[in-house]
Amino acid sequence: MSHILIIGAGGVGSVVVHKCAQVLKEGGFSKVTLASRTLSRCDAIAQSVKTRLGVEVATAQVDADNVPELCSLIRQVKPDVVCNVALPYQDLHIMDACLECGVHYVDTANYEPLDTAKFEYKWQWAYQDRFREAGLTALLGSGFDPGVTNVYAAWALKHQLDEVHVLDIIDCNAGDHGQPFATNFNPEINIREVTARGRYWERGEWVETDPLSWSMNFDFPDGIGSKKCFLMYHEELESLVQNLKGIRRARFWMTFSENYLNHLKVLGNVGMTRIDPVKFQGQDIVPIQFLAKLLPDPASLGPLTKGKTCIGDLMRGVKDGKEKTVYVYNICDHEECYAEVGSQAISYTTGVPAMIGTKMVAQGLWRKPGVWNMEQFDPDPFMKDLNVYGLPWQCLDVTGKF
Amino acid sequence: MSHILIIGAGGVGSVVVHKCAQVLKEGGFSKVTLASRTLSRCDAIAQSVKTRLGVEVATAQVDADNVPELCSLIRQVKPDVVCNVALPYQDLHIMDACLECGVHYVDTANYEPLDTAKFEYKWQWAYQDRFREAGLTALLGSGFDPGVTNVYAAWALKHQLDEVHVLDIIDCNAGDHGQPFATNFNPEINIREVTARGRYWERGEWVETDPLSWSMNFDFPDGIGSKKCFLMYHEELESLVQNLKGIRRARFWMTFSENYLNHLKVLGNVGMTRIDPVKFQGQDIVPIQFLAKLLPDPASLGPLTKGKTCIGDLMRGVKDGKEKTVYVYNICDHEECYAEVGSQAISYTTGVPAMIGTKMVAQGLWRKPGVWNMEQFDPDPFMKDLNVYGLPWQCLDVTGKF
Repeated sequence: MSHILIIGAGGVGSVVVHKCAQVLKEGGFSKVTLASRTLSRCDAIAQSVKTRLGVEVATAQVDADNVPELCSLIRQVKPDVVCNVALPYQDLHIMDACLECGVHYVDTANYEPLDTAKFEYKWQWAYQDRFREAGLTALLGSGFDPGVTNVYAAWALKHQLDEVHVLDIIDCNAGDHGQPFATNFNPEINIREVTARGRYWERGEWVETDPLSWSMNFDFPDGIGSKKCFLMYHEELESLVQNLKGIRRARFWMTFSENYLNHLKVLGNVGMTRIDPVKFQGQDIVPIQFLAKLLPDPASLGPLTKGKTCIGDLMRGVKDGKEKTVYVYNICDHEECYAEVGSQAISYTTGVPAMIGTKMVAQGLWRKPGVWNMEQFDPDPFMKDLNVYGLPWQCLDVTGKF
Repeated sequence: MSHILIIGAGGVGSVVVHKCAQVLKEGGFSKVTLASRTLSRCDAIAQSVKTRLGVEVATAQVDADNVPELCSLIRQVKPDVVCNVALPYQDLHIMDACLECGVHYVDTANYEPLDTAKFEYKWQWAYQDRFREAGLTALLGSGFDPGVTNVYAAWALKHQLDEVHVLDIIDCNAGDHGQPFATNFNPEINIREVTARGRYWERGEWVETDPLSWSMNFDFPDGIGSKKCFLMYHEELESLVQNLKGIRRARFWMTFSENYLNHLKVLGNVGMTRIDPVKFQGQDIVPIQFLAKLLPDPASLGPLTKGKTCIGDLMRGVKDGKEKTVYVYNICDHEECYAEVGSQAISYTTGVPAMIGTKMVAQGLWRKPGVWNMEQFDPDPFMKDLNVYGLPWQCLDVTGKF
């Protein structure tokens, strides 16, 4: 029986709290506490949990940039695991606090310094020795992508393939929020990610591409149909190419509508996606932060979004000496998510795996001292919980079709 | 022999000074002074004039928002005519100063309050009695459009038609500056103008249209070819429908590329063309002003722009009891303008008529106490000077073609 402390009360945080409360109600956790900079947001989520599930979660106020404040909170709350769904800038502070206070750590997105648009695990992997020596587990990237996509790969390698040669992670949001332009999560992080240079793994080295310069059409299941997907760099590739036996090529693809890309291109052309400050009225103004201020709050899109997401791993490899290709994927419906927890599928598909990863660590199913990525644990209990907690998956044998 | 004071050292101001210096060199003016908020910009223009034409113009510093400062400058410089090519927000201050100091007034664009995107002559027409009683002439809108387009109409009514029933002013910039997006003059004023609702005159009343919702294709002469033109409201319509005998319909059209409109649409969608302040980092930030800060300085486009502009009046009416249609137009080449005065055609086509209007008033050819629009004077000497000073025109009989 474990006590969970969730830090971050955004769209993903709200889903994590609702799903942790479900486990609490089932008797799988002993207590759930939610903390963030803004106590009123925590209280609103706790109220929703009480209304929907009839269970209580505790709330607290904390500045996740402030390590002493984090430590004071952790010492007071005494959780077994901290689930970090704050901003990626804050990962290292929360890891520092977990080390100092002796609690396990789980997050969903890797640390990203404020001033560079760069994903890299190096800052967090550098904590390997400290977590190992402290006898604590740090589980990195337990969202959907990264997260479930890593577990899909580990599961396929355990049950379907002897070696994976080619991995294509394909992320499709076929939802429609009816707005001319909006981003699905924090606009600043979203736009930085999309406008970054692409990168994929090819026979032992990284190959860079211009932003959104490579695309393919992929025919998605469950009535979604064919969509244009663009090659991007995504953080799970960094660990997967190290941990997947036999991997030769690993790529990440995401669908974008023509309308979305046109807006991004224009905003880029006029300099509104710049992350460097511009002097204006005697102040430093970062254009992308000012743009984020003007765009719809991602949270406001929840009740407006219809349609489905489809995220999966297409893996070509060898089984018993013969070529074999499998496609493991989840379909998630925006409106069903909103009905269940008051958030649409983008937050739901990240928040549910954050809860499951936390549960894996809390219940001791995934626990070893050090800093780990998702594919470094046994995928089976995680895959089982995906089916139990709202993200059911399918595995298709598509040998010869791709 | 007259002394001319030019206020405003932007792109148009530079052209006015170069062309006034040309008249000075010919002996048509006795002295030319340029004043603006930034003395160094005035000095740079004066240096260009000296290099290109070998004549001296004086320079001075003035804040055009400050009437006492304007008066002190005017009393010191003692000009006969003030040519105002500062910002439209400043028209009334400069008119006030001219009245107080007893000098004639010429401008190129009507007064526009800072906080509304609205063109109206009412504020300037309200000075009618004061200028008449002071025995001073105020000539409004002596650019190309308004300006030359008004004079074309008056000339056609004097020489080509007994009545004008339908007037279509058609403004085409077929130039290409090679940038993804930039505006040809002050981005804030440009975007406010383009995103405003359209308006045209039809049988005694104004009809409103959604922004850029009406378009037509027009086949421009001199190799420019067919371009899509959009109906907009433009300030010369307000006076022309009062002053043109027999007018039933009056419209203004401007060409825009798909690329330009797409950029505007996206910037509008995300709120970047808003003129109301947004609270950001504790400050009021007006989105369109921040956007203007990011876009290329219009002055930087001069050396980059190739191609031509074509602005003209298509007028259908009656001559000797028979229907007749004439098209009066000018073609201007961006690179030729840049070679002559260091500015492209957008500034050139506004600056040359500003000099000619100033010359008309200064030489007494256009002078009557009060506040007047361009079509209220004899068009012939102005039309003659257009041919002399770089904006030659053509008149085609196109009866039955439109």
